Amino acid sequence: MAYFRVFPGVLTVVLLCVLVDCKFIAYNTSQGIVDGKLNVHLVPHTHDDVGWLKTVDQYYVGSNNSIQGACVQNVLDSLIPALLADKNRKFIYVEQAFFQRWWREQSETIQDKVKKLVKSGQLEFINGGMCMHDEAATHYIDMIDQTTLGHRFIKEEFDVTPRIGWQIDPFGHSAVQAYLLGAEVGFDSLFFGRIDYQDRDKRRNDKTLEVIWQGSKSRGSSSQIFAGAFYAGNYEPPTGFYFEVNDDSPIVQDDINLCDYNVQERVNDFVAAAFAQANVTRSNHIMWTMGTDFKYQYAHTWFRNMDKLIHYVNQDGRVNAFYSTPSLYTDAKYSLNESWPLKIDDFFPYADRVNSYWTGYFTSRPAIKRYVRMMSGYYLAARQLEFFRGRNKSGPNTDSLGDALALAQHHDAVSGTEKQHVANDYAKRLSIGYKECPLLNISYCPPTEVDFSLGRKLVVVVYNSLGWRRTDVVRIPVVDENVTVHDSAGQVIVSQIIPLAGSSRDMRKFYSSVYVGESSNSSVYWLAFTATVQPLGFSTYVISSGKLAAPVSVKQISYPFDGSRGSDVQVGSGNLKLVYSGDDGKLLQYINSRSLVNISLEQSYSYYAGDDGTIDSQASGAYIFRPNGRFPIQTEGKIPLVVYRGPLFDEVHQTFNSWISQITRVYKEKEHVEIEFLVGPIPIEDGIGKEIVTQIKSTVGNNKTFYTDSNGRDFLKRIRDYRADWDLQVNQPIAGNYYPINLGIYIKDKSTEFSILVDRSVGGSSIADGQLELMLHRRLLYDDGKGVDEALNETVCILDKCVGLTVQGKYYLRFDPLGYGSKWRRSFGQEIYSPFLLAFSEQNDTFTNFPVPTFTAMDPSYSLPDSVAILTLQELEDQIVLLRLAHLYEVSEDKDLSVKASVDLKRVFPDKKIYNIRETSLSANQERGEMEKKRLSWKVEGGSNKQDPGPRGGPVHPTELVVELAPMEIRTFIIDFNSKVFLY
Amino acid sequence: MAYFRVFPGVLTVVLLCVLVDCKFIAYNTSQGIVDGKLNVHLVPHTHDDVGWLKTVDQYYVGSNNSIQGACVQNVLDSLIPALLADKNRKFIYVEQAFFQRWWREQSETIQDKVKKLVKSGQLEFINGGMCMHDEAATHYIDMIDQTTLGHRFIKEEFDVTPRIGWQIDPFGHSAVQAYLLGAEVGFDSLFFGRIDYQDRDKRRNDKTLEVIWQGSKSRGSSSQIFAGAFYAGNYEPPTGFYFEVNDDSPIVQDDINLCDYNVQERVNDFVAAAFAQANVTRSNHIMWTMGTDFKYQYAHTWFRNMDKLIHYVNQDGRVNAFYSTPSLYTDAKYSLNESWPLKIDDFFPYADRVNSYWTGYFTSRPAIKRYVRMMSGYYLAARQLEFFRGRNKSGPNTDSLGDALALAQHHDAVSGTEKQHVANDYAKRLSIGYKECPLLNISYCPPTEVDFSLGRKLVVVVYNSLGWRRTDVVRIPVVDENVTVHDSAGQVIVSQIIPLAGSSRDMRKFYSSVYVGESSNSSVYWLAFTATVQPLGFSTYVISSGKLAAPVSVKQISYPFDGSRGSDVQVGSGNLKLVYSGDDGKLLQYINSRSLVNISLEQSYSYYAGDDGTIDSQASGAYIFRPNGRFPIQTEGKIPLVVYRGPLFDEVHQTFNSWISQITRVYKEKEHVEIEFLVGPIPIEDGIGKEIVTQIKSTVGNNKTFYTDSNGRDFLKRIRDYRADWDLQVNQPIAGNYYPINLGIYIKDKSTEFSILVDRSVGGSSIADGQLELMLHRRLLYDDGKGVDEALNETVCILDKCVGLTVQGKYYLRFDPLGYGSKWRRSFGQEIYSPFLLAFSEQNDTFTNFPVPTFTAMDPSYSLPDSVAILTLQELEDQIVLLRLAHLYEVSEDKDLSVKASVDLKRVFPDKKIYNIRETSLSANQERGEMEKKRLSWKVEGGSNKQDPGPRGGPVHPTELVVELAPMEIRTFIIDFNSKVFLY
Repeated sequence: MAYFRVFPGVLTVVLLCVLVDCKFIAYNTSQGIVDGKLNVHLVPHTHDDVGWLKTVDQYYVGSNNSIQGACVQNVLDSLIPALLADKNRKFIYVEQAFFQRWWREQSETIQDKVKKLVKSGQLEFINGGMCMHDEAATHYIDMIDQTTLGHRFIKEEFDVTPRIGWQIDPFGHSAVQAYLLGAEVGFDSLFFGRIDYQDRDKRRNDKTLEVIWQGSKSRGSSSQIFAGAFYAGNYEPPTGFYFEVNDDSPIVQDDINLCDYNVQERVNDFVAAAFAQANVTRSNHIMWTMGTDFKYQYAHTWFRNMDKLIHYVNQDGRVNAFYSTPSLYTDAKYSLNESWPLKIDDFFPYADRVNSYWTGYFTSRPAIKRYVRMMSGYYLAARQLEFFRGRNKSGPNTDSLGDALALAQHHDAVSGTEKQHVANDYAKRLSIGYKECPLLNISYCPPTEVDFSLGRKLVVVVYNSLGWRRTDVVRIPVVDENVTVHDSAGQVIVSQIIPLAGSSRDMRKFYSSVYVGESSNSSVYWLAFTATVQPLGFSTYVISSGKLAAPVSVKQISYPFDGSRGSDVQVGSGNLKLVYSGDDGKLLQYINSRSLVNISLEQSYSYYAGDDGTIDSQASGAYIFRPNGRFPIQTEGKIPLVVYRGPLFDEVHQTFNSWISQITRVYKEKEHVEIEFLVGPIPIEDGIGKEIVTQIKSTVGNNKTFYTDSNGRDFLKRIRDYRADWDLQVNQPIAGNYYPINLGIYIKDKSTEFSILVDRSVGGSSIADGQLELMLHRRLLYDDGKGVDEALNETVCILDKCVGLTVQGKYYLRFDPLGYGSKWRRSFGQEIYSPFLLAFSEQNDTFTNFPVPTFTAMDPSYSLPDSVAILTLQELEDQIVLLRLAHLYEVSEDKDLSVKASVDLKRVFPDKKIYNIRETSLSANQERGEMEKKRLSWKVEGGSNKQDPGPRGGPVHPTELVVELAPMEIRTFIIDFNSKVFLY
Repeated sequence: MAYFRVFPGVLTVVLLCVLVDCKFIAYNTSQGIVDGKLNVHLVPHTHDDVGWLKTVDQYYVGSNNSIQGACVQNVLDSLIPALLADKNRKFIYVEQAFFQRWWREQSETIQDKVKKLVKSGQLEFINGGMCMHDEAATHYIDMIDQTTLGHRFIKEEFDVTPRIGWQIDPFGHSAVQAYLLGAEVGFDSLFFGRIDYQDRDKRRNDKTLEVIWQGSKSRGSSSQIFAGAFYAGNYEPPTGFYFEVNDDSPIVQDDINLCDYNVQERVNDFVAAAFAQANVTRSNHIMWTMGTDFKYQYAHTWFRNMDKLIHYVNQDGRVNAFYSTPSLYTDAKYSLNESWPLKIDDFFPYADRVNSYWTGYFTSRPAIKRYVRMMSGYYLAARQLEFFRGRNKSGPNTDSLGDALALAQHHDAVSGTEKQHVANDYAKRLSIGYKECPLLNISYCPPTEVDFSLGRKLVVVVYNSLGWRRTDVVRIPVVDENVTVHDSAGQVIVSQIIPLAGSSRDMRKFYSSVYVGESSNSSVYWLAFTATVQPLGFSTYVISSGKLAAPVSVKQISYPFDGSRGSDVQVGSGNLKLVYSGDDGKLLQYINSRSLVNISLEQSYSYYAGDDGTIDSQASGAYIFRPNGRFPIQTEGKIPLVVYRGPLFDEVHQTFNSWISQITRVYKEKEHVEIEFLVGPIPIEDGIGKEIVTQIKSTVGNNKTFYTDSNGRDFLKRIRDYRADWDLQVNQPIAGNYYPINLGIYIKDKSTEFSILVDRSVGGSSIADGQLELMLHRRLLYDDGKGVDEALNETVCILDKCVGLTVQGKYYLRFDPLGYGSKWRRSFGQEIYSPFLLAFSEQNDTFTNFPVPTFTAMDPSYSLPDSVAILTLQELEDQIVLLRLAHLYEVSEDKDLSVKASVDLKRVFPDKKIYNIRETSLSANQERGEMEKKRLSWKVEGGSNKQDPGPRGGPVHPTELVVELAPMEIRTFIIDFNSKVFLY
């Protein structure tokens, strides 16, 4: 019988999904802006890290998915049909390193389709650099280079110029990003996700998330750009609007044949989220970033749901939703003709919550950071040499180094926040790029450690990539202490021998085993001599065994701490002298007999114990600096103060403990102190991660104020425990006062400036008045929960035995009378960035390999002004050259040099005729004049209607060919030496 | 200076990925079969469960992805462009429930493209039912219905007939699947993944994974089909060849510009995997199933990698790889003209490893299993009524019940192996389907519990969907014990009142609160009366308050166990009598005074403790029966034996403990025993899951041999601890001897047959000689690790309070002299499947609502032969009818009825003219003759060249219209009553 009582286990209630006839639905996605309604700009995007948890190539092809499911190839493959399916759909693509990989692999058919999509604006390139570079650990020259690489590709393939800055993920935002990589590349706006949580709260309350950001004091209103910090502090869709394959947001279920029809519910969710955002946003335009990391692997899943949302939300009518881009959003904001709040300086440091200051990454992976900086200087020089020699189109050239360096600027690359295997990949790419640029057909690195007793000689070619004549001490390792140095005129020149000793020798031995597989036991010396080289030129020197040997440095050993009061030790044979205590070996005094600066100072090492996260799940890690106490490094037992004295410089060798030592150098001809440190392996046997800092304490009364550079360019004023934009709640008095340093940091009082310059990106601060502090190395045992999912614990292994990484580096310090510091910071800073480039050749006879023992590309009697540097000199194609010149001084920075300067191109290129010269945007993808014409002119709240754009160099006369540069101005040119008509 | 010693932390070794020019690669995928090489048939497929962890609609639209990332819409959406992109690519699609959902939503443009893909063979429908039905817990009528639904849709939309059976996931394989749902639907082969691990090992050793499977003794060689069990025991690609978005198999990286180029490595992997499989496979053709559950969400990811593999593997040349389908693979095997081993019977039970017998699911979710069976019988009857009345095209009709039932046959639906929320969804769909089929415009279920004292009367319409005249006892609940039943002629008929008491009343109260939200406290009675109904007809009865009231059953209570020896209790007033012990209340004797069978027997309940998985991680669960000891259920204290006696039947009420009770009925006019059990809530307070069985022990000496049905159709011989195909290692003497039962189970010896028939799918066995055992209910506390990730712990909740599900059900037992059992098993078995269908109407007056109080659609003097049942009588479209007739007896099963039988269609449809009749395949998607012509004729090893196809009914003469059926034959016809030309 079919009659039955209610049957156990069976629900007989509910009647929801009824089968009726149903057909294909065509969704209306054609909506545009509607005045008077809240306009929700849906911006479909993917955020594709150029390396992070996986390498860039792994991300591209989708391998190593067990680490992270991500395949950029899928994104781009699936995107094209999705866009072709509906002309109203839009997408923005950002990272050109990925796009270029993909583009190479496409058929012409697909390439043609993509070109049409770009032309129609359905597919828009945003940001447009090879990567979304970091903004803290990057140097501005690298930022420009990597952006140029991307922008020129886009220009060449698609004839378009990106309009929008899109730094949605970097962990804080720099002034240089805003004005150089924003306004100066012709961007109309700049968007980002991460600003300090306190700042964001205030800006949400004030409706000041969107501002006019002026990044430079010197460049005036021309350095302004419309800038928007995202509402939620990230670059994701509102909660519940994620539509990747397998995402668990509720899809829009509009098939009434099926269960769980939810159109009204989803429309309500949409409208509620839109109003919530509108509530803290000026105007009736809001942007939804519809995507996140590596999404759109099957683009259709997103567009299918967004189509439906647009269709049904607009049917509902409470808000207006449509496909948009940041460009359309920017135009919409601009068309309102409103005034916006002004923002100056930068957005550092970044904290995403109490105790989570993203200031550790300023120092994370210091070796990679140095490698990148070194390669950056090398790349600058190599491109010059490549131009002089003639670019090799098919064979080895500087392109792969350029690509490798571009990748390395990514915000999880040089930042040090990638996984270890990914860090290795960046390093490998740099090393390959380096190998692919053999210098002037000379093997770039023959052994310098030749046995001169057999009559062999070593030729050293010293190249100077600066625009100035330059004299500097060159140091190379040799195995014989009886060597003589001749200049190219055959004259013996002064040189100096220093034995390689102590920690340095141990390190040489260990790392050569690790990386080359063999360990040298022969005793080694440093040979130092002074080289002088013309601008953009080289000199050659010959090293041989000789009776007129270089003097070996005189060694003096003091044993302080023996109870008796010893005499103080003074080093330095020129204007600068340092005095060390004969009692405890500590640095006491800095005396410059020329400038009459006489300063008491102390130098010490400490470590911060990295928090393990037990308190509030915030450990110190690759991103985060979360100190749990500061501990001074005590010297272990009776340590000698070892001094080597010679004709060129004096060295003070100090060993603080088994894993920290340093060499302090005072050059006879220089007035700064060079400190070479060796830190590591940082001990972790106590289960505590450590972050090593050096502190130099002086008597300079800086009253909480210090200055750090923005990406090696402008100096910004910092005040301890203070933010100009909001009333700072101080929770982390150390980590919250750390700032990124790429060029230097300084403090000053009424009489004195105290400056430190660095050889790589580091974090630093002035934690107490008179003091400067640099974080040199970090070794941590816990992941900090920001996604990398590895502790920052760099090791070096031989077979199965691994030890913590040792880091070697330099910093430079100097005291000047007030107003005299900038010359050293700017000029010597440029020399740190662009060191002499050395090449070696072994030779038994005369200079047969070197028909030209000295060379300068410029007019031998010409030199660039002290205030100007050549940032780029690069042959783009046959005799078409990219030239970038930079004024190094800010307005009012130096009484002599903060003025306009001129460069005479005819004397820079004396042997070539300039047929054509065109000034371009900073990224060389459009004519400067066109860019200026298109630039949107935003109104600033409370500002005068016409703002001061700052001084600028005048136009370059086509036959006079003199380039004028105002303070902090960078000018970019494409020069044609070949009478061809050229394109960008 | 750019010279530097080997730099800490930087790898300078390795030079792998060098940037060179690279272009789009066109892959050669055009390869076909190559003789003399190992041919690897790559078969791209997805396996889309029609409900399991998510509901069917959730799977389709991709919601609830937090449970499982799966979206069939993505699969089909992304598949089409992937196939269009390369005409060599192929794909098979299986589950029509999903395909139909998708198809409805497509534009005509897409539909046209898909039609072309189907026509060209790029897209092939395989299996083609609505779902991939289970093979253990399904009834063959349901299997036919759900396959027909899918096949006819495919025929109508695409004009193709699926060629291949593809039961890759079900947990064991039935004989009925092979011959009825295989050979009889015109399939050329059948493939599956899961067979016993011992069996598979042996077949790999013998190269007998591919066989000719003959599923029926009665149907001879015409029931043979080529069948292949997959090499690895699953339906997945070889390890390392998974290419879903985010899968971590190594993709084929063939871009030499990028790192990790791996073409040769991947080719080697491919070749190695191919040879490993070839090693256990006959011939040089092997099949790779390139896909698994819900894959191809972005089909491009698979095809991209398979394109490359085909391209490079064929370049390599060691093996030959190409896109293929099971059809092409079957044709390749067939073209070899080889002989294959013969396989008979089935592949039950299934174990995938030692101690992992998939025999628990034979009983899992017994309530759902009953609900499905009940709806199945209802659906059969409802379609008959729909035809008689005229099908309602737009309004409510039987379609949604058909769809719901089709879904419920899925191998994770009626199998009971789905998650709880999914089980609820299946039940909801069935209930909706049920509601949508109002019977003959009469509300199908008015309250029968009317107050007759107010002069109201209840009309009961009793419909008989069988082809035989039938008399049976009808039972309905009433609130008044003084009622009278009149037949449609106005005559009072014999009836009987039984009070609802004890557990039954408690259950009524509790479950009505749960499901209807109100609990009735009024006392209720069962009213029983005997109804007699013509074939395909109905009778009406009127119930009213009356003086000639039905006699209330006489209650007799015995209190055994009181220490004194009581008299034995005998029940039954007809031929059959049961004797119970007056001492302990136990059943003692079964006596049939007509057949002279007199058998001693015992009946008891036990439970198996479900293993918790601590020994070897194999717990008892939804799939797996893993007993850890058997424990007899002891009665609790002094329990009375309660007997109700009446004119129609006697009832014995026994309460074994607080959660097991039963009512045993002996009908005066019937010679079997009906046992209605009530089991639950199964106690779990002791932390032990329990699987409840009832055991009936007799003196029948069956010598380890018993018989169970295959999907309710053929009976297969089982031998305890034995398999015909291999030398069984017995590890699980209980679970390994369990078989699925849908119709019944029996044993026999030289004199007697002992049969049990069931009302739903259950697991059972004969664990000891003379004994039969049924598993009635299961409540388990651990997941069994087969994916469902839930313990099978069904509960029923009021507010927050949940108790274990109680299950009520019936089984029927009977003893017959040897050779006389099949008549009861077959005829009464059909009555269990097709019970009387009741409808109710309240009435104050005469039969105004029932102008025709009795009805038969057939010639009133005609009845189908006892051996024939109408499986289907369904109006497909206006006056076009699908008729399916089945002979119910096997060859030699019954001395009278195992012979050809005839049905006179003119008397079945006396009022209609048959203009046309066409015999079709079982799934009604092609003409029978065409199917027979196309059928591949495989050679069997060691068999005679011409095998016996078994007896068959002859062709139907177009005017004689007599259908002849041989034993076990099922014949399907499409009949045109409307002189129209019709298509399938």
